[in-house]
Amino acid sequence: MRQIEVKTEAHQELHDITPQVQAAVEASGIAEGVCYLFCPHTTAGLTLNENWDPSVRHDLGLVFDNLVPHRPDFRHREGNSPAHAKTSLVGSSLTLFVSGGRLVLGSWQGVFLAEFDGPRRRRVLVKVMAG
Amino acid sequence: MRQIEVKTEAHQELHDITPQVQAAVEASGIAEGVCYLFCPHTTAGLTLNENWDPSVRHDLGLVFDNLVPHRPDFRHREGNSPAHAKTSLVGSSLTLFVSGGRLVLGSWQGVFLAEFDGPRRRRVLVKVMAG
Amino acid sequence: MRQIEVKTEAHQELHDITPQVQAAVEASGIAEGVCYLFCPHTTAGLTLNENWDPSVRHDLGLVFDNLVPHRPDFRHREGNSPAHAKTSLVGSSLTLFVSGGRLVLGSWQGVFLAEFDGPRRRRVLVKVMAG
Repeated sequence: MRQIEVKTEAHQELHDITPQVQAAVEASGIAEGVCYLFCPHTTAGLTLNENWDPSVRHDLGLVFDNLVPHRPDFRHREGNSPAHAKTSLVGSSLTLFVSGGRLVLGSWQGVFLAEFDGPRRRRVLVKVMAG
Repeated sequence: MRQIEVKTEAHQELHDITPQVQAAVEASGIAEGVCYLFCPHTTAGLTLNENWDPSVRHDLGLVFDNLVPHRPDFRHREGNSPAHAKTSLVGSSLTLFVSGGRLVLGSWQGVFLAEFDGPRRRRVLVKVMAG
Repeated sequence: MRQIEVKTEAHQELHDITPQVQAAVEASGIAEGVCYLFCPHTTAGLTLNENWDPSVRHDLGLVFDNLVPHRPDFRHREGNSPAHAKTSLVGSSLTLFVSGGRLVLGSWQGVFLAEFDGPRRRRVLVKVMAG
């Protein structure tokens, strides 16, 4: 099990971790198998999406804020209930394939830590299994 | 493959199954590996979120109801289309890590069955693989 | 690693791929294990839901469109930002169980490619591992 460390810089941000995940795959020495990612936080998750045009990330941020606005009847005193909800919407675990010692991703796909309550230091756990 | 049985008590509820998943991991005798969870229902899913302050669960319930209200143009005659939609939003499968014979979870993370059409008896399938 | 090819026929569609996934499981010759699915696109994802009453799929389409309407402040010039956002909401990977050489699914569950920017030719990658 390896660990990726991320320092997010905005309150909400899709932070591209594709290079770090690729480095973890290479460090494992496994050529064919599966790469599991796990985010141990409750106000940040993991998602795959386009990493070519940065405006896609901008637009996803608008969507998330529109989906989960603040509400006066939220009870959680920390005030970050929208971040908790967005995390359950994108999810906390991903399973990727490894072939030829590299991640198998679509042409436009990148792996993102989805920060919903930053800026913070975040961790992503990575495990690569042969098969 | 093991099975966790859950009896939910409300129409919508985040039911903490962390202790049962931990028990399934221990029963497997596997120290290092991966724990897969699968929910075989179409109106209940699985999610990770904070299990310390119960008000987080309350607020997530408000969010889910706000995201998927009932609509007069729904065609599914059983009347539970919002529960089907919420299930696709949170998802039906999770992958967790196992280390030292225990689930690897963040400090505030718990594993929840997300009931969207209860109260009902629900099942969660668990498989632990070494690696 | 096997590949399922899908030709979607509508702009938005839940396309049932359960038979193709089952065929891939059978072709693997693995009786007990795990079946991973991965969608390498950024405007289509994967989800599990009811495959018996087609009106569930109709209603989910209404929900997705209601959740992510077009917005004048979207910046992505291709105009398909809602499709990107819906993909992150349902997710791009699924993990299913295999037992007795067959997928383990609930009575009403089917596996769907969730097309959000069709019609297009899409691919789903499948890997089956014993365990």
